[in-house]
Amino acid sequence: MTTGNGEKGFQNHVRLISRRMELKEGEEAVRRVLREIYLRGVIGTKDLARATRLPVPVTAAIRRELEKAGIVARRGGAVITERGKAYVEEVLGIKNEAVVSGLKAGFEIDVRHIHILDKLKGFSDMRPDPKTQLDQAFATPETTLRRALYMLDNGSLAGREALFLGDDDLTSVAAGLLGGANRLTVVDIDEKLLNAIREISKMERLGIECIHHDLRDPFPEGIEGRFDTFLTDPPYTLPGLRLFLSRGIQALRKRKSSKAYLAYPDKPPLEMLRTHSAIVNMGLYIDELIPRFNEYQGAEILANTTFLARLTVTEGAKPSVEGSFRGEIYTGELRPTIRTYKCRVCGIEIEVGTTRDHSTIEELKERGCPSCGAVEGFKLTRRRAV
Amino acid sequence: MTTGNGEKGFQNHVRLISRRMELKEGEEAVRRVLREIYLRGVIGTKDLARATRLPVPVTAAIRRELEKAGIVARRGGAVITERGKAYVEEVLGIKNEAVVSGLKAGFEIDVRHIHILDKLKGFSDMRPDPKTQLDQAFATPETTLRRALYMLDNGSLAGREALFLGDDDLTSVAAGLLGGANRLTVVDIDEKLLNAIREISKMERLGIECIHHDLRDPFPEGIEGRFDTFLTDPPYTLPGLRLFLSRGIQALRKRKSSKAYLAYPDKPPLEMLRTHSAIVNMGLYIDELIPRFNEYQGAEILANTTFLARLTVTEGAKPSVEGSFRGEIYTGELRPTIRTYKCRVCGIEIEVGTTRDHSTIEELKERGCPSCGAVEGFKLTRRRAV
Repeated sequence: MTTGNGEKGFQNHVRLISRRMELKEGEEAVRRVLREIYLRGVIGTKDLARATRLPVPVTAAIRRELEKAGIVARRGGAVITERGKAYVEEVLGIKNEAVVSGLKAGFEIDVRHIHILDKLKGFSDMRPDPKTQLDQAFATPETTLRRALYMLDNGSLAGREALFLGDDDLTSVAAGLLGGANRLTVVDIDEKLLNAIREISKMERLGIECIHHDLRDPFPEGIEGRFDTFLTDPPYTLPGLRLFLSRGIQALRKRKSSKAYLAYPDKPPLEMLRTHSAIVNMGLYIDELIPRFNEYQGAEILANTTFLARLTVTEGAKPSVEGSFRGEIYTGELRPTIRTYKCRVCGIEIEVGTTRDHSTIEELKERGCPSCGAVEGFKLTRRRAV
Repeated sequence: MTTGNGEKGFQNHVRLISRRMELKEGEEAVRRVLREIYLRGVIGTKDLARATRLPVPVTAAIRRELEKAGIVARRGGAVITERGKAYVEEVLGIKNEAVVSGLKAGFEIDVRHIHILDKLKGFSDMRPDPKTQLDQAFATPETTLRRALYMLDNGSLAGREALFLGDDDLTSVAAGLLGGANRLTVVDIDEKLLNAIREISKMERLGIECIHHDLRDPFPEGIEGRFDTFLTDPPYTLPGLRLFLSRGIQALRKRKSSKAYLAYPDKPPLEMLRTHSAIVNMGLYIDELIPRFNEYQGAEILANTTFLARLTVTEGAKPSVEGSFRGEIYTGELRPTIRTYKCRVCGIEIEVGTTRDHSTIEELKERGCPSCGAVEGFKLTRRRAV
């Protein structure tokens, strides 16, 4: 694994150039320019500016600095030199085969990734049942793969260190199967889920690091300030969102701009406004927001899609939670509901909720149907606030 | 033109149902559900929830209310009744041929709209040259059409009253050519531009209302609280954005949620964070953000794409500017620059900027090249801050 800091006698060109130029976008801007030149073969300054979404004069200046460093040359447009190729591949960790995801218009999966999708479908069943008290709901394998491809396309996997804050969706596995990341780390409260990820990772040699941890507590050693990016599909409550994003910010290296990925559902307007305020007030803003990007298995009675937002984490981003957090974060804690399940075996209806005999569906399954004793085959039929 | 209020003996079902149900999303939610049922022919509750991005229980309850009103029936899913069809078409103004835009994945224009694109290309030249001191930069005809199609897809044109806050891009014309809107109004400071839009509107019988007005001043009569939606591609400065969005909010009917459309460029991270803060602080949030949606003609030396954001304007949205605004809003006022133009005829370079002989490119063209007298053919070659 490389750390991106001067292996094999290379200078950290990306950082040096961004400092010399006092770039407001920081070293990410230089990396973006270099990545595009590497990927495209030959590219003019105008197309380069368009692809990186940087102003033309800034793009042109970065290109000149890269030329001075001998990393880029001019040949009917910007091209990468041999020395530059080595730098991009060995130090930045970007390699051609890994970085072109083939996510098509409309975020469809290209046929050449179908074998990864098939694997993900198989791994899907290795997880324990989703724990509703932890707001778990499994994204479909298609969603998981599309997420990882989207991260790849946005330069957040190849050569990067990525953190997954909660990963019952197995996005880390999809990222691992695509390959090219320098570090893939999952932090989750669910030990059984982590065991499943460990097993898959071992089987496929993905090297995913699994850390059992409750995000309400501060991180253990080795996480704060160590990552390039994070992805989270947090509890769908404001305190849950705030907490997970706060931990994400803490995990990132201090840079002028990093990318983060957030899955979150639509909610009524005023609740949504508070959500967006929380994001902006922590120093994050939305680069791209794709409605209905994420689909979930099961959750039939809930709205079963969420958006995916790519966020920029600015230099001064400030977690709204710093130390331990002792408040409630899960939907079941904040908005207690009574859920009515129908036993598919004997047909009776059973109420589940904090004030009932079974506080969660997991508990009902453990104890079995009070009428016929069945331990599975419960279908959610109604849901109401307490 | 219909006002949506009880023509032909119809009650305002959309409003009545939203009030009776105390919907947090307001009447827009009922309209969204009804529109989907109308468009799809037959649709189940789950698909309906997915399409409208409302929770399943809310969707199901709205559907039941629509059934009670005799607007919707059950026939292997929700279907529109004859009575419902008349209500949707005559009162809500939604008609089948108008509402399906055919914007494809990746926001590509469907071939059946090529005749509109051709017209827009023709109209493009009817405008006076872009006035850089007003931050004008013309979007390409493709962009203009894609914007209008996107508004259509999101239920903001058919049967709606739409306001364009500044329209050098001719989006109102594209919207008019698609048809179906109840009112299309352009407010612009540029009388010559408005004359061109008036001429096009007359020629094509689009009925576009053109109002000559400086948005730094409060609106004249007949605009405040009268629109369902607005679109703006404002000056790319924070005061410009704040002012244009403030006027947009003032122009909207007071509702629990309305949609607005904003084109804006990428900027360095901290500037972008301030932009997003301004949006959220006014009570607006992002529903969808599509990077690089808008492309512009000419502006070769500037970053020539902007994102398009669909915003929800919440009930309590508060303009940050209420009365007159006397501050600076245009890029040239806030960030004076010296631009160097090269005369294509004689080859000399001429500096243009507030402290030079010619303060704008328009002035240079009017006076002619100081060396050879040419009045056009100036190419922007450099740009620097004063």
